[in-house]
Amino acid sequence: MFTGLSAFPLTPTSETGIDERGFRKLVARLAAAGVDSIGALGSTGGYAYLTREERFRAARIAVDAAGDVPVMVGIGALRTSEVLALAEDAQNAGASAVLLAPVSYQQLTDDEVFGLYEDVTAGLSVLLCVYDNPGTTHFHFSDELHGRIAALPDVGAVKIPGIPEEQAPTRVAALRSALPEGVALGVSGDQFAAGGLNAGADVWFSVIGGLLPEECLAITRADADRAVELSQRMTPLWELFGRYGSLRVTSAAAEHLGLIGSPNLPRPLRGLPAGARREVADVLESLGVRA
Amino acid sequence: MFTGLSAFPLTPTSETGIDERGFRKLVARLAAAGVDSIGALGSTGGYAYLTREERFRAARIAVDAAGDVPVMVGIGALRTSEVLALAEDAQNAGASAVLLAPVSYQQLTDDEVFGLYEDVTAGLSVLLCVYDNPGTTHFHFSDELHGRIAALPDVGAVKIPGIPEEQAPTRVAALRSALPEGVALGVSGDQFAAGGLNAGADVWFSVIGGLLPEECLAITRADADRAVELSQRMTPLWELFGRYGSLRVTSAAAEHLGLIGSPNLPRPLRGLPAGARREVADVLESLGVRA
Repeated sequence: MFTGLSAFPLTPTSETGIDERGFRKLVARLAAAGVDSIGALGSTGGYAYLTREERFRAARIAVDAAGDVPVMVGIGALRTSEVLALAEDAQNAGASAVLLAPVSYQQLTDDEVFGLYEDVTAGLSVLLCVYDNPGTTHFHFSDELHGRIAALPDVGAVKIPGIPEEQAPTRVAALRSALPEGVALGVSGDQFAAGGLNAGADVWFSVIGGLLPEECLAITRADADRAVELSQRMTPLWELFGRYGSLRVTSAAAEHLGLIGSPNLPRPLRGLPAGARREVADVLESLGVRA
Repeated sequence: MFTGLSAFPLTPTSETGIDERGFRKLVARLAAAGVDSIGALGSTGGYAYLTREERFRAARIAVDAAGDVPVMVGIGALRTSEVLALAEDAQNAGASAVLLAPVSYQQLTDDEVFGLYEDVTAGLSVLLCVYDNPGTTHFHFSDELHGRIAALPDVGAVKIPGIPEEQAPTRVAALRSALPEGVALGVSGDQFAAGGLNAGADVWFSVIGGLLPEECLAITRADADRAVELSQRMTPLWELFGRYGSLRVTSAAAEHLGLIGSPNLPRPLRGLPAGARREVADVLESLGVRA
């Protein structure tokens, strides 16, 4: 399942809970577009903010609405015992894989992070994707640690942060050589995805793919030059991601497209202020994006 | 209550839950030593790793074991609705104050952090201490934001990270001028506490004070020069804090003193490896520390 476009939808959530109808609609739209897999409850899906019960319900909705498209479910939490419970829930909900970031409060050591993956993979019946996201976890993986963890049973993929295009070939090759054969390598950082795929990554774990699947599938299915060209067309969007963060821009974009209501982020997170929303709307219109 | 020594005990926790007997003993020991207040469920108290139920029980035990000593309880969590529930629980458990850090997964904006404190103080019946701890939350407060938040009703204190001694007078004066009158200013970073108190801070929020209250009370009750001298005596301990982190060193020290069993940190956190434990034991012995 770790190939092509893995689309990460928002989980629209307000102070009254998850907008389950809106979430179902977002997931169904991705499946209809033919994405290769769906990453429910990733960072964009707000997993870190949701209760265990909310995460279980969201996982079930995602699996149901995805139909034949395999769903990976985020199981990250600060405490190992909670992660183990979430892994159980995700499997019971029908997830085809789980996604685990070393969520941190106290800075974790390499041995603690290895121990987390060891504890979690010991009881899994589905594949696990290692989620390397220093922007939110503040943990930095070495390639050596990636290699040790990826050798654990049932590790199927590693999701790495964005790499600028010119560094992608070297970076992908170096990490690939640290990973056991058969472990997929996936890139994030939407603006760098075309470069990462051209450098040999297997899969694009995509924030914007969770909202604009057709535009992103066009990138994963194009030849190298055309992929870069299509990605460069979206530069105004990448600039907004850089300025306001991909989560808040995607939230405003989904609202603008009429797919979900407002507010759709759980407090303390807030949607973008009016001026920034206008910028998001203008960019979507200039790109000719429709819901 | 925001004066002198505020001692932050560990909450000994393993995969079978909180060691409630051990925790009660740690708190009672602080009360018997005559600390000015107790900070239960701070970062050293592992609040971020505990369930709501565990936090409520720990808060009740702390209030009970503290006797007449006022107890502040940490209520930080990633989601505002969870923080509101924890604030309610802490007050029901008898806390005299609550401690709130802007715990982050997605990087928070200044307005989001202000909104969090606004939402939480709107319903409080006890004082709140703002917990500025960029090492764990990765959020950086400006003095302007500190001033805005401290002007909210029921904000009683601000807890700031350690400041090297030579910078303390300037830093304390600058922040003091941003805070409304009557809001206490407290320092953390044990090695810098004497300098911070000498620079005019009202209170020392102390990790090591949660384990060695008598040694720390000697510092808060000494005159300026003697306080620095007593703190400098503990330099080998500060060096271990720098090398291994104050949480893991304090955990190993509490074990060495026979106050709690092992393991006492919730996974994925792990205690120090054997070599580092030996260093901790040697330093405690060289300082003549006994339980």
